[in-house]
Amino acid sequence: MDSQQFRDAAKGAIDEIVTYYDNIADESVLPSVKPGYLRPLIPDSAPEEGESWEIIQSDIDRVIKPGLTHWQSPKFMAFFPCNSSFPAMLGDMYSGAFNAAAFNWICSPAITELETVVMDWVAKLIGLPEVFLSQGEGGGIIQGTASEVVVTALVAARERVIRRKLKAMPEGEEKLDAAADLRGKLVAMGSEHAHSSTQKAAIIAGTRFRTVSAPAENNYSVTAASLRKTIEETKAKGLIPFYFTATLGSTATCAVDDLAGIAELAREYPDIWIHVDAAYAGSALVCPEYQHLCPPLAAFDSFNFNLHKWLLVNFDCSAFFIKRRRDLIDTYSITPSYLRNEFTESGLVTDYRDWQIPLGRRFRSLKVWFVLRSYGAQGLRAFIRNHIQLGEFFAARIKTRPDLFRITTDASFALVTFQVTPAPPRGGKADQPDPRHEAYTSDFTPSGEAQYTEDCNQATKRVYEKINSRGQFYISSSVVCGTYIIRIVSANTAAEQQYLEMVFDQLVEAAEEERRGGG
Amino acid sequence: MDSQQFRDAAKGAIDEIVTYYDNIADESVLPSVKPGYLRPLIPDSAPEEGESWEIIQSDIDRVIKPGLTHWQSPKFMAFFPCNSSFPAMLGDMYSGAFNAAAFNWICSPAITELETVVMDWVAKLIGLPEVFLSQGEGGGIIQGTASEVVVTALVAARERVIRRKLKAMPEGEEKLDAAADLRGKLVAMGSEHAHSSTQKAAIIAGTRFRTVSAPAENNYSVTAASLRKTIEETKAKGLIPFYFTATLGSTATCAVDDLAGIAELAREYPDIWIHVDAAYAGSALVCPEYQHLCPPLAAFDSFNFNLHKWLLVNFDCSAFFIKRRRDLIDTYSITPSYLRNEFTESGLVTDYRDWQIPLGRRFRSLKVWFVLRSYGAQGLRAFIRNHIQLGEFFAARIKTRPDLFRITTDASFALVTFQVTPAPPRGGKADQPDPRHEAYTSDFTPSGEAQYTEDCNQATKRVYEKINSRGQFYISSSVVCGTYIIRIVSANTAAEQQYLEMVFDQLVEAAEEERRGGG
Repeated sequence: MDSQQFRDAAKGAIDEIVTYYDNIADESVLPSVKPGYLRPLIPDSAPEEGESWEIIQSDIDRVIKPGLTHWQSPKFMAFFPCNSSFPAMLGDMYSGAFNAAAFNWICSPAITELETVVMDWVAKLIGLPEVFLSQGEGGGIIQGTASEVVVTALVAARERVIRRKLKAMPEGEEKLDAAADLRGKLVAMGSEHAHSSTQKAAIIAGTRFRTVSAPAENNYSVTAASLRKTIEETKAKGLIPFYFTATLGSTATCAVDDLAGIAELAREYPDIWIHVDAAYAGSALVCPEYQHLCPPLAAFDSFNFNLHKWLLVNFDCSAFFIKRRRDLIDTYSITPSYLRNEFTESGLVTDYRDWQIPLGRRFRSLKVWFVLRSYGAQGLRAFIRNHIQLGEFFAARIKTRPDLFRITTDASFALVTFQVTPAPPRGGKADQPDPRHEAYTSDFTPSGEAQYTEDCNQATKRVYEKINSRGQFYISSSVVCGTYIIRIVSANTAAEQQYLEMVFDQLVEAAEEERRGGG
Repeated sequence: MDSQQFRDAAKGAIDEIVTYYDNIADESVLPSVKPGYLRPLIPDSAPEEGESWEIIQSDIDRVIKPGLTHWQSPKFMAFFPCNSSFPAMLGDMYSGAFNAAAFNWICSPAITELETVVMDWVAKLIGLPEVFLSQGEGGGIIQGTASEVVVTALVAARERVIRRKLKAMPEGEEKLDAAADLRGKLVAMGSEHAHSSTQKAAIIAGTRFRTVSAPAENNYSVTAASLRKTIEETKAKGLIPFYFTATLGSTATCAVDDLAGIAELAREYPDIWIHVDAAYAGSALVCPEYQHLCPPLAAFDSFNFNLHKWLLVNFDCSAFFIKRRRDLIDTYSITPSYLRNEFTESGLVTDYRDWQIPLGRRFRSLKVWFVLRSYGAQGLRAFIRNHIQLGEFFAARIKTRPDLFRITTDASFALVTFQVTPAPPRGGKADQPDPRHEAYTSDFTPSGEAQYTEDCNQATKRVYEKINSRGQFYISSSVVCGTYIIRIVSANTAAEQQYLEMVFDQLVEAAEEERRGGG
């Protein structure tokens, strides 16, 4: 493919992409393909001779599109969104053109330096404490996903506590043995509602893992008292708690741990690395009305949120901020001879490879820069606030039908969670509030209560599955403290009230069917 | 930015990108900026109001381009290349448009299924043994970089050996303690010339690390005998060797470990996971004349190479093949309630998140598919063979000047390494072979030999620095077994004989200057 062929092909692709976006709301959000659909559609090995772009491009419609889940559709309300934007796509186009494995400064100074400055922009925009800015001892780095950030922080935490405990020992075999013994006693912690990435990170790091209780009566949030209890129980067993993921917006319900209380507690346990995972909800911090959450962050070691979820930067882009970059470099820096150069040795440059697990790095700051500049801070705030309001709108709609639904957690960061109440017992009336629920709130027996919970869970699960099986909307579910919930997220780039109305109508219809069919 | 504005902006960007490629050979490959150049060029925080695309785009010329290292320039001969191609860029454009955090099958079936099939294409194209195909117990997955692959394999190896050793123990605290004790005894291994990623992966996994000797007399390759020696020494200390990175194309010299011998040895040590890192050189396996290297791979657990280095797929794209996918899933699979779905539970689909560290995944198979189809197997073979021949051409040029240079490792996978010989002692003639080198080959004294080595190293380093400081060509250096070498790689997409001639002339000029100035 020569320059001119690429020019034509790429412009044709742009037209196709625009058409895809212009019509995305009309597509069924979930594909109807069955597992294994794709293999029979294409040859079983690469062609011997090259094919023309016309043939290749036509296979996007024939092979790819039938198997896509349309995350950019306004009818995608599952998980958390993965928002795209046109300025971010332009950033990725240039990034692809300037293709480089930019593992140190001289490998492309613009790639390192724009990232440093733009991460400072992001830190200021979301009101992070100054300790996370690059001009002091901290700074920001772009990682792929929150999962990678959590592994990176947790491993650095493991090595930091070992360095501190063994700092008096001379290097050598004996120290390696002592470090190995210590590693075996380390315990990482996370809320029982923290994303599974913390547990997975503990597996990767080879440490133990304990969940910290965050019950429904605390709105599924970890309190300082609850964290202290886990720390002390762990220590009482002769083990060493060394890391905790605090959550700002849990996956299931967008719960926020008691950051202020935990910040106080952190002073008592300086060897415990506290990382704040704000993967989704962190984007809301662009709005001053959420920045009251920020001052306690100064007490913690690291923080991350995913601009690829809710801040219009195409996947992947997780912003990872660290208070003392030394804490990463002391673990991750290895400089073999082929990576030595005068700039790295001058100490004047940042080599981000020493802050992370991979060596090579893409030019991801370009898309962030383009998005921040295209929207401006005001545009981003308006974008977030619209979604917050849509969440409140949807919660209000759910509350209009207490006969069918009950809110589990009210609108929080554009997420509403709720249950479908079960069919009334035989003899009850389908259009009246569930009499068993009435009983539950007065003098329900324990076994009856368990039965009621189970019936709610089953009804909710059936309604959830019914919506997704139709393929028109894509919603997700979760289980928190034994409660099966439906989650509706109104933070998609293309979200609009009309689609929330539509999914509400489908939920009502499905819940009414459940009522008629159940019992 | 609305659809029409994006259409215009993106088409303008395409024109700019084509112009950039058309003129790249005329640019100075290294930028002349100093550390910290970028910050003063842009504001210190994001704008309050959105800016127009015209303003943003103009900053690419003003802010970004002066700080780029042009990896796509034919004058970039450093490290290993990071090749781009137009079909790969088209793949990334569509991937960005279909933006999704595709962490399981239903999150976008096309993303999972195309990856499975295209990784099979790649396996067949490079002649991998059938055990690495997806239709048996193995399969391929795209990862970002070789570093990530090595961590992923090494951690899975750590957990596999522990599972095996403790399989008789019931679950519980005692087993956790026993696992922690075992982890503390584990030793990962890699050639002394293996990429630093293995040592870094051992740090991340929290295991010990030992290098395996691979001296100059073995062409810097690990032999079975050398590996056995390290294994047995490790065991004699009461430690447990559990993982080895075998190298197919080492970073410094493209050395290939004795794969056939190590495959034999592997039978004796079934609990040692052997991973083959062919990050750069693996692309050459598209040519049948290199596929004699492949049969022994069937004895190993995993294999990877980076299509983003030498196979025209834009960064990042490391193909990771595993013989028993179960070995990954048993370590990385965690399924919290919000990720449960009927497809995953049916067992009919692949959830690649269970094969890797991150959760979310990009649609990277699209660019691989486009590249394999645009070039065809024949086109890719021609692409590689051209670079191989250019390497041989360059080695031949170096050999025409034995008075200035001596080859350290001959052309291997389009990499040539050599030294600059030092200035002759006072009284010697500058245009004759270095008399000290003559002496070295007959009856040089040990201390004289050390002095000669040091003089060679210093001369080579000075010439290397001289070339890069001019900024016209970018080359790299390394140190192998105490020998400082210059590395010239002729595998850039745009590589041509004329540029190798030009860099050769510069090297001659710099080496002659060194001769005149040194001594």
